[in-house]
Amino acid sequence: MFRTAELGRTVTKEAYHEAVPVLRAGLLAAQQQLRSASFPVIIVFGGVDKGGKIETINLLNEWLDPRWIVTRAYGPPSDEMAERPEYWRYWRDLPPKGRIGLFLRCWYSRPILDRVNKRTSEAEFDEALDRIIAFERGLADDGALFLKFWMHLGRKAQKERLTKLESNPRTRWRVSQSDWDHWHLYERFIGAAERVIRRTSIASASWQIVEGDDKRYRGLTVGKAILDAVRGHLEKAELQRRLLDEIKAQAQPASPRKATPASAEAATEATIIQLPRITVLSKLNVDKTIDKKSYEKRIEEVQGRLNLAVRKAKELGVSSLLVFEGWDAAGKGGAIRRIVAALDARDYQVIPIAAPTEEERAQHYLWRFWRHLSRAGKMTIFDRSWYGRVLVERVEGFATEAEWKRAYGEINDFEDQLVQHGIVLCKFWFHITQEEQLARFEARQETAYKQWKLTDEDWRNREKWDAYEAAVDDMIEHTSTMLAPWTLVEANDKRYARIKVLDTVCDRLDEGISRAEAAGVAALELERAG
Amino acid sequence: MFRTAELGRTVTKEAYHEAVPVLRAGLLAAQQQLRSASFPVIIVFGGVDKGGKIETINLLNEWLDPRWIVTRAYGPPSDEMAERPEYWRYWRDLPPKGRIGLFLRCWYSRPILDRVNKRTSEAEFDEALDRIIAFERGLADDGALFLKFWMHLGRKAQKERLTKLESNPRTRWRVSQSDWDHWHLYERFIGAAERVIRRTSIASASWQIVEGDDKRYRGLTVGKAILDAVRGHLEKAELQRRLLDEIKAQAQPASPRKATPASAEAATEATIIQLPRITVLSKLNVDKTIDKKSYEKRIEEVQGRLNLAVRKAKELGVSSLLVFEGWDAAGKGGAIRRIVAALDARDYQVIPIAAPTEEERAQHYLWRFWRHLSRAGKMTIFDRSWYGRVLVERVEGFATEAEWKRAYGEINDFEDQLVQHGIVLCKFWFHITQEEQLARFEARQETAYKQWKLTDEDWRNREKWDAYEAAVDDMIEHTSTMLAPWTLVEANDKRYARIKVLDTVCDRLDEGISRAEAAGVAALELERAG
Repeated sequence: MFRTAELGRTVTKEAYHEAVPVLRAGLLAAQQQLRSASFPVIIVFGGVDKGGKIETINLLNEWLDPRWIVTRAYGPPSDEMAERPEYWRYWRDLPPKGRIGLFLRCWYSRPILDRVNKRTSEAEFDEALDRIIAFERGLADDGALFLKFWMHLGRKAQKERLTKLESNPRTRWRVSQSDWDHWHLYERFIGAAERVIRRTSIASASWQIVEGDDKRYRGLTVGKAILDAVRGHLEKAELQRRLLDEIKAQAQPASPRKATPASAEAATEATIIQLPRITVLSKLNVDKTIDKKSYEKRIEEVQGRLNLAVRKAKELGVSSLLVFEGWDAAGKGGAIRRIVAALDARDYQVIPIAAPTEEERAQHYLWRFWRHLSRAGKMTIFDRSWYGRVLVERVEGFATEAEWKRAYGEINDFEDQLVQHGIVLCKFWFHITQEEQLARFEARQETAYKQWKLTDEDWRNREKWDAYEAAVDDMIEHTSTMLAPWTLVEANDKRYARIKVLDTVCDRLDEGISRAEAAGVAALELERAG
Repeated sequence: MFRTAELGRTVTKEAYHEAVPVLRAGLLAAQQQLRSASFPVIIVFGGVDKGGKIETINLLNEWLDPRWIVTRAYGPPSDEMAERPEYWRYWRDLPPKGRIGLFLRCWYSRPILDRVNKRTSEAEFDEALDRIIAFERGLADDGALFLKFWMHLGRKAQKERLTKLESNPRTRWRVSQSDWDHWHLYERFIGAAERVIRRTSIASASWQIVEGDDKRYRGLTVGKAILDAVRGHLEKAELQRRLLDEIKAQAQPASPRKATPASAEAATEATIIQLPRITVLSKLNVDKTIDKKSYEKRIEEVQGRLNLAVRKAKELGVSSLLVFEGWDAAGKGGAIRRIVAALDARDYQVIPIAAPTEEERAQHYLWRFWRHLSRAGKMTIFDRSWYGRVLVERVEGFATEAEWKRAYGEINDFEDQLVQHGIVLCKFWFHITQEEQLARFEARQETAYKQWKLTDEDWRNREKWDAYEAAVDDMIEHTSTMLAPWTLVEANDKRYARIKVLDTVCDRLDEGISRAEAAGVAALELERAG
């Protein structure tokens, strides 16, 4: 696999100095065009030590306009990072649409080093690579252009390079004992590298192996590859946009014309082939109630229990994340207020999710949720969440069918990372009947201080009840997993709903606390210390 | 995840009898349209025992035109199957374009049962699922429409169904002890099922969970889903065809117009930014020779060695597979003849690969190579191979860029399965210089009995030497792996080339024989016995 990168390719000084200005002009022009494009460029550097990764990144920062570039290299995680799932830091640093991100020692580093140093089994290595594939595929599906350069040196060439650097007093500092340690593990490193390159070279994000021996050759090669790829992707994006416009244009006049015979037939067919419209929500017993007196006793008890649990969780560094979804006026806000009433304001954060900001729209839709992940020991409450993708965005057509269908898997992956990190995750769907919603809407209209809560949109959403109900059913089918189950809350009776939510949160927190205690307070302290 | 399939959905007899004729008419019409389509339909059934998989398949065979359907259910592998990689039987049975394949107890069975019975670890389970994902993604990328139905019954419902079947003398035979054994493992089964559904629900092949309790409901649901999906895929295929035509139409007039300023600039750019054109082939030392006398001694020795090795391999059930690729007139045929000269005609098979037959064109491009995999202990020699995808099909534009780029990973997966099955795989690229090729072409023209070997195509291919050389370089970069490395054969001297090939085959066979011996003759006998 690496044979093609050990051929001794070089570029002469003259050829290099002739080529660079032309390449730079091309790169700057492409970068300028990129700024108004609807995708980011993510460039990853991997490879052997001294294969020229850093020099090439420096070169690119020199050649390109640095204002539109993000360069990131990662060392061991800070405590900020260690308290969150591993990928938090990568999500945080992703370039927005129109910009270029250069990544070094990033999501590939730990898996490779752990494998080379035999800290992980082959199966664990593969699992880490699966995580990478899911991460990159998700971003590429969203339009990102991926370029991955593997800077290669043969075993002998690497040794020569280390020796040469060491022998020059001005560059000696660049060679450390760990460089030599790595060199001694060369064969193992190459074995792991082959597996990485093979498994993670997916169609939309494949590795390019670059011979790293000659700095002029590798610089020109990488620069030219970036230029070609950015140009190609810009053209492709433009073509796609045009085709989509055409499809839309064709669809508009065609549908009324077609409507007559085919649609009539389809309509008859649809009325005859009837499948029962029973959904999970339709089967909920919304008559569950709790009387006022019992409620007042229970709410006090459970708030007390919650307060204790949250304090214990904080002490142990157990974070929790509550997701509230449900019909308009189903009582999510009231339930959230009953939770936070039991907490210290420093220990929680409520994140109301409305339409994304401009900054957020320039990123993958999950980006704005990753950024809100809190440090260890905190509770984060999402009032609406990433499930908007498969609910409102699906029903209103803001996301294409391919996008929302893909989202189930992306959401499961995201939540897996939360749960695997030890975060207690609770997901609530607040269900009320259509009649109850109507009653509440009308009550809101009549109460002056509640009128602001009722908008035209609420009435419009109400008309799409069936579409939303089908979307909720699909959501539960695809994302109510053993690790992250949905709790359906019968919410026609607000009191009943609140008690059910608080009970559930307490139960799940207690489970998380037990797990953390079992894992050992000592180990946790160690982790928190970095 | 399964909660949405435990809602007690039913369809009344009347509604069912009204719907079925309409559904059947739709299905038959769609099937008729499908016959001339450029994709196959692959329908997979999974789920709990007695969830209605078999009944639904029977129903579909009744509703559809059975002439264009293949139905397959797999039991334990026969010896025919056990002697080949696991997926051989699935590839063999894939429906060609325009047809429907119904699969039951297929590629999902063994991974799930092994996991439920704790014969495999979670990591091995995941590895088996990765194999499935690669298999299905490859077929879907090639255009196949995938439908996967998971027929579900709750634990209680399954028990009721088993009890009911047992209590009726006419259906008692359908319940065996193993059904009850499985029922007792229900929770474990559901755990494995959730993992299967989550991990293998990729965009192009996602699972649909069907409540399996009511036979009318599940029949209509599956039938309707198939109808909708086939119609949708037909439309999509048609739209894609039209868009491709449009792109082509737009590209034609646009390019000459554009040619003036932009292309001139691009041409200047290309002449200035010059990267060295050194390839793996250009670095080969083609001057390696062996004199005639040494050759005659060596060829006899190595043919003797080969004969022994092949007989030993046959005895141990070690298969081998030799791939010959290389320039026209590079001497592949001569080398193959020197190999088979040392063998018993019953022990080997030479497969010359030319343009695919009509039957082969109706399948995924790897299909025709899977079908030629031999039984245990045989040697199969491919004179040209699946590498045509990334060589001639790439250079001549028979495969799109997306297709040949995807092929590297597909080929690696394919070869992994061969090697993991214990097959000895040797891949040879025969390299000669352009001058040597010219000399050989001229010699062929002059020798009457060799003229047939030289065609106009050979001269045309020669003109594309550089493009082929770049393709070979990429091929080696992507597919020369530790498990399946390429052997580059310096073939300007035919004698040298033949000795190198025979030596390599002998060495690799000996390695394979040692591995098989180490694995134990006893174990192999057991496996051969099924």
